[in-house]
Amino acid sequence: MHTLNVDLGSRSYPILIGAGLLGRAGSFDQLAARNVLAVSNSTVAPLYMAQLRSSLAPRRVVEVILPDGEAHKTLGNMARVLDVLVANRFARDCAVLALGGGVVGDLAGFAAACYQRGVDFVQVPTTLLAQVDSAVGGKTGVNHVGGKNLIGAFHQPQLVVADTATLQSLPARELRAGLAEVIKYALICDAPLMAWLEQHLGALLGRDPAALAHVILRSCQIKADVVGRDEREQGERALLNLGHTFGHAVEAATGYREWLHGEAVGAGLAMAATMSCECRLLEASDAERVRRLVELAGLPTQVPGVTPQDMLSHMRIDKKVLGGRLRLVLLRRLGAAFVTADYAPEALMRTLAQHCGAGAP
Amino acid sequence: MHTLNVDLGSRSYPILIGAGLLGRAGSFDQLAARNVLAVSNSTVAPLYMAQLRSSLAPRRVVEVILPDGEAHKTLGNMARVLDVLVANRFARDCAVLALGGGVVGDLAGFAAACYQRGVDFVQVPTTLLAQVDSAVGGKTGVNHVGGKNLIGAFHQPQLVVADTATLQSLPARELRAGLAEVIKYALICDAPLMAWLEQHLGALLGRDPAALAHVILRSCQIKADVVGRDEREQGERALLNLGHTFGHAVEAATGYREWLHGEAVGAGLAMAATMSCECRLLEASDAERVRRLVELAGLPTQVPGVTPQDMLSHMRIDKKVLGGRLRLVLLRRLGAAFVTADYAPEALMRTLAQHCGAGAP
Repeated sequence: MHTLNVDLGSRSYPILIGAGLLGRAGSFDQLAARNVLAVSNSTVAPLYMAQLRSSLAPRRVVEVILPDGEAHKTLGNMARVLDVLVANRFARDCAVLALGGGVVGDLAGFAAACYQRGVDFVQVPTTLLAQVDSAVGGKTGVNHVGGKNLIGAFHQPQLVVADTATLQSLPARELRAGLAEVIKYALICDAPLMAWLEQHLGALLGRDPAALAHVILRSCQIKADVVGRDEREQGERALLNLGHTFGHAVEAATGYREWLHGEAVGAGLAMAATMSCECRLLEASDAERVRRLVELAGLPTQVPGVTPQDMLSHMRIDKKVLGGRLRLVLLRRLGAAFVTADYAPEALMRTLAQHCGAGAP
Repeated sequence: MHTLNVDLGSRSYPILIGAGLLGRAGSFDQLAARNVLAVSNSTVAPLYMAQLRSSLAPRRVVEVILPDGEAHKTLGNMARVLDVLVANRFARDCAVLALGGGVVGDLAGFAAACYQRGVDFVQVPTTLLAQVDSAVGGKTGVNHVGGKNLIGAFHQPQLVVADTATLQSLPARELRAGLAEVIKYALICDAPLMAWLEQHLGALLGRDPAALAHVILRSCQIKADVVGRDEREQGERALLNLGHTFGHAVEAATGYREWLHGEAVGAGLAMAATMSCECRLLEASDAERVRRLVELAGLPTQVPGVTPQDMLSHMRIDKKVLGGRLRLVLLRRLGAAFVTADYAPEALMRTLAQHCGAGAP
């Protein structure tokens, strides 16, 4: 087992990473609450809830099982979680626990942030995407029909338990979606990780435990460092949104129903690389290397059926708009991302035209 | 004009107090946002929105007008505010402004806390209760059918503008409700203020500007000091809930429709005094003095139509329950409150029996 620490002063917390952690009562020693609301979905709960319950004993565990999928990450379902907390008369010293992927984690975390103005929260991520990204860092929230994660809160978990054994049961499509976030970390600040990924994607797609453990640990290290330096995204943390402004627009434009978040991020990374090339920051060969790596991970780089105009309209409500100007995370080289609002609108239009629309291959 | 500062490091903010501030553009100099969502209610907006709009010019101001009353402080109405923010494509650099009393302030502040994980927030309180209490300190939230303020966030305003001239248009019932919170501050930590109130309640009820300015300034000073020392209610801030655990139960038991919040707090203060007496902390004559002051302010001290059992059941979901034990704020003398879970259940039952039930006078 590896233990990483997210260093946030009085809000610091450990990330436990290892195979079989879910079945070990010791994994939850940190958790003081005697009353736990476990939020999960209809796919994950049948696989792992019983094991979790026994590890949490003798605590009282009440369950809320949501339908599976990004389309269910709504304020309405968050209200459902709150209703169950109230109905069970859970007090401020309870904890909310998320067992599942990013949707469950974001929604349950937001409920924990708002119930009685904030109760303890535990993340038990069971997807690669949640283990490398969404379970760490305290961003919680739900979607609005107008845009992704537009409603939410910063609310750090008290503990993250990432059981890598759960990845063996993950659908292949979800595994690939998680790899998008790993590629993202490499592009932002870790060129050696990019080279490693180019060589070991086969092992990752084959679920080699050592390969998976390597990328989860490295991803969590990078994220914990960035979040420790900039919890509320006043600066550096915005880099972690590489590919996400494009990706969120893809998700919103398709009603959160067709694309997995990680798939949209994969296409978004390819778009960010193209845009960096259009802005004469990145060599065409490097942008091509990004596109190839995304494709090697089995992820889309093209968005058929969404027009560049649709994309633009959804990007304008993105949280990175300031003073009416949309900021983008771009690459000045592989392994070096930066935020900028200084780009030619035509470069953005050319980028969208290359990746989106009915005519996209 | 008086300016007080709430000292919270990077989240510090000024409270401006004075007559006519609403009509002065300079009152909003602090406000950097060019896009403002002004939330108000159907009673206050016709009186003051036009004046506010001209003071905010040339900023863009979009309005959300809610129905008046505590019954409308719901997650559904908070979602309405979010819908308007999204529909107008307001970015993270917008501000939400609350023009009205505690209901508008709590709900708008919660929307500001959740929109894009937190945008700027300005309080323009127009009731005595909001000016002396709810507009200061960053507690935001909405009610749940199961209990008062069960859903919310800590989100400090960037600026509070308390225009004391607005109190001249306040219904008498609302003015009295606001006095409950002023009496609360006196009981918690300011015995001289209690004596002052006993002498000057007539002037306050007659809306003497100097008397009103005195209690607003003193109340805000006390609240700013307490919040500056304990923003998130880890300790001392809980004292500000004197009378509120009882009061919230009265409001919840009557569906948030019959009692104004301040009226319920008035009765709650009388109950807290009785309970302190039942616990042999306070002299009977002092409890009687509290009851008389509440009545002199024109506030109820009895709760007919709600049984002690109803009260208990609603008190059990209060945010001050820890480890299954309900903590209460009690008085060890007038001007000295403290928090305790160490009391005889029978003392609580005797207290409720004296103030509640069909048989209450």
